[in-house]
Amino acid sequence: MTVEDLRRRAAEADAANPVAGLRDRFALPDGIIYLDGNSLGAQPRAAEAVAADVVRRQWGTDLIRSWNDNGWWEAPVRIGDRIGALVGAAPGQVVVTDSTSVNLFKVLTAATRLRPDRRLIVTDVASFPTDLYLADAVADLLDREVVRLSPPEVVGFLGECGEDVALVAVSSVDYRTGEAWDLPTITRAAQGVGALVSWDLCHAAGALDVRLDDHEVDLAVGCTYKYLNGGPGSPSFLYVATRHQDRFEHPLSGWQGHAEPFAMADRYTPALGIDRGRVGSPPVLSLLTLEAGLDAFDGVTMAEVRAASLSLTGLFLDAVAELLPEVAVATPPEPERRGSQVSLRHPDAFGVVAALIERGVIGDFREPDIVRLGFAAPYVSHAEAVEAAVALRAVLDAGEHLDPRHVRGTVT
Amino acid sequence: MTVEDLRRRAAEADAANPVAGLRDRFALPDGIIYLDGNSLGAQPRAAEAVAADVVRRQWGTDLIRSWNDNGWWEAPVRIGDRIGALVGAAPGQVVVTDSTSVNLFKVLTAATRLRPDRRLIVTDVASFPTDLYLADAVADLLDREVVRLSPPEVVGFLGECGEDVALVAVSSVDYRTGEAWDLPTITRAAQGVGALVSWDLCHAAGALDVRLDDHEVDLAVGCTYKYLNGGPGSPSFLYVATRHQDRFEHPLSGWQGHAEPFAMADRYTPALGIDRGRVGSPPVLSLLTLEAGLDAFDGVTMAEVRAASLSLTGLFLDAVAELLPEVAVATPPEPERRGSQVSLRHPDAFGVVAALIERGVIGDFREPDIVRLGFAAPYVSHAEAVEAAVALRAVLDAGEHLDPRHVRGTVT
Repeated sequence: MTVEDLRRRAAEADAANPVAGLRDRFALPDGIIYLDGNSLGAQPRAAEAVAADVVRRQWGTDLIRSWNDNGWWEAPVRIGDRIGALVGAAPGQVVVTDSTSVNLFKVLTAATRLRPDRRLIVTDVASFPTDLYLADAVADLLDREVVRLSPPEVVGFLGECGEDVALVAVSSVDYRTGEAWDLPTITRAAQGVGALVSWDLCHAAGALDVRLDDHEVDLAVGCTYKYLNGGPGSPSFLYVATRHQDRFEHPLSGWQGHAEPFAMADRYTPALGIDRGRVGSPPVLSLLTLEAGLDAFDGVTMAEVRAASLSLTGLFLDAVAELLPEVAVATPPEPERRGSQVSLRHPDAFGVVAALIERGVIGDFREPDIVRLGFAAPYVSHAEAVEAAVALRAVLDAGEHLDPRHVRGTVT
Repeated sequence: MTVEDLRRRAAEADAANPVAGLRDRFALPDGIIYLDGNSLGAQPRAAEAVAADVVRRQWGTDLIRSWNDNGWWEAPVRIGDRIGALVGAAPGQVVVTDSTSVNLFKVLTAATRLRPDRRLIVTDVASFPTDLYLADAVADLLDREVVRLSPPEVVGFLGECGEDVALVAVSSVDYRTGEAWDLPTITRAAQGVGALVSWDLCHAAGALDVRLDDHEVDLAVGCTYKYLNGGPGSPSFLYVATRHQDRFEHPLSGWQGHAEPFAMADRYTPALGIDRGRVGSPPVLSLLTLEAGLDAFDGVTMAEVRAASLSLTGLFLDAVAELLPEVAVATPPEPERRGSQVSLRHPDAFGVVAALIERGVIGDFREPDIVRLGFAAPYVSHAEAVEAAVALRAVLDAGEHLDPRHVRGTVT
């Protein structure tokens, strides 16, 4: 297959892609191929008007009345329901509040209390570090023990020691390699031994067809600034399946999670339902602007987004095999084992990423040797997937990745 | 004193007020006297351009590079230093992150660990409920006991049981009555028996001349959306005095508080300095827009703001005494015992607030019988203070507070 063959295939795939129409909803700079939506999603055009309206009219003119009149009070649950629709959760199970780390803390403490006689918390050894740090902290706090496993080892471990496991907390997609783990199987295995399961959906929400309710997942968290395009640091979401909500108890007993927040009661009584995941005042401007990111999914299903994403990563993998045969691929070739990114391994990965950015292809570097390229189907085209591979070929041919300006620095 | 005398006095005070010039920096709707800046501060005009720039240029164009190029990574500490300047804290002691409730959790857990052999946490019985709920939760979690006292009782209690007190956590200003507590005396008394002290500055930051370093305060938290005018739900601040930072340990061990956040290390090692107060990704849009609120204080000192605030509340109290002799005042008459609000008691307080809002005077109701009126010196004038009292006289004379439309509802 020549480059021209790849380009022809890309053009055909773009023409047939039902998700391609979403691209116009995003403001992307000219000349940029943006493959870092797995770190910070692109800006939906509508976000600008939402932010301006929140500042000018809702805050500036309506002032304090906006808590009622502009729906600020209900926003964490209302917007939670909209995220729920994208991760397959029926209304009333998702709340948007705090950071993913803080929501993980709630999940870890609540799960430990839901399974008081079980000593172990099983985590994903290769998960994003915050997941590991929080599990260690909660184990230390509540006298539990953390077992770090690779997700494929979890089922076997549960077969041996399952009755002592309170919680299995795994990331849906490995943030470095882009490998997607088997959510249904691990969920069933955990529940089969009476443990709870929590999925970190940071690299799944808005990209994979997660279907939390269908798979009867217990708990989940995720960020909203990657594939959900909520804006930098937009608040995180917490999912608690309805059946667990009345016993979901965490120590962050802030007033907004109270059953009667305006009664200013003497003692904390958690709200019924998902509201008990709330703590303090949410960052309203970031929260409401996130909604523009969710609007950008209007008219497509997550099955369509997932299919488009697999088509993009599949084409890119083919282009790598064709144009970059010497480059090692960290992401599994099987579609069902892929998230929405492709990770390449290169000894000069840092320089490769920097040189690609100079050519207008934005990805990111991850320790120790990973070139990470995310394919957000709502705004990345198949044509761009091919051109990214062409650009990488040019970088390596010209030795641009060895340029002394690209010594290891502060690229995040 | 007639109304005309009060108006003349107001005009003179406004003319001589060095803080009055700040009013032009705020966008307030015509015909509104806004006395709810103690709940949600007014919108600084500059906030609109900041929010637009963050969305359009920083997020939309610069994308992921903004974490470095637009200073997103450092923003929590950089903006923390700016708040530090307004509460009398030298640089490197304040970080802006999370909600006040979450920051209280860090303070309560860290203080308990700093004083491991002491059983008691003393809290302010009339503080905003979140402070009470969090203290209860942490006591439950770490096997401690909470003692709820009125701040004037704290010094006596410390004389009796002080050696068993780990932390005294008090609100600087009572959110209902507006009474300001004696920060230097309570701080010294706590430290005199080896306890730590934490101040909740929600109703003080941006209004009172707090001077944390001068009074050698150990710990503090506060919100930024009241007198600091950061916007709805803008993130909270956490102050940890330099001398405590290397042993300030809390269980919210998120990756952004790690000593080397990008090394993706296996185990959590807290950062040196105030960065260890960070947890997950901050809500960047809300965080950077807050900075416009801090800019609005440029050119005045907190001593000037405090003097203007006392002048405003003093004039309002005189107007109440003159025009509304039958109305009970909950706020102490002595300037040094006043925060930046005046609270009136009325059996139909809810209706009074609703009727005042209809007349364009926005305050708020607090259980059970409080009409709460905040005087944010940067944008409230002495003339408005008098007109608010005149409006209240008119409401009561016409019986507008008894209007059946003003039955107890959802005004927040």
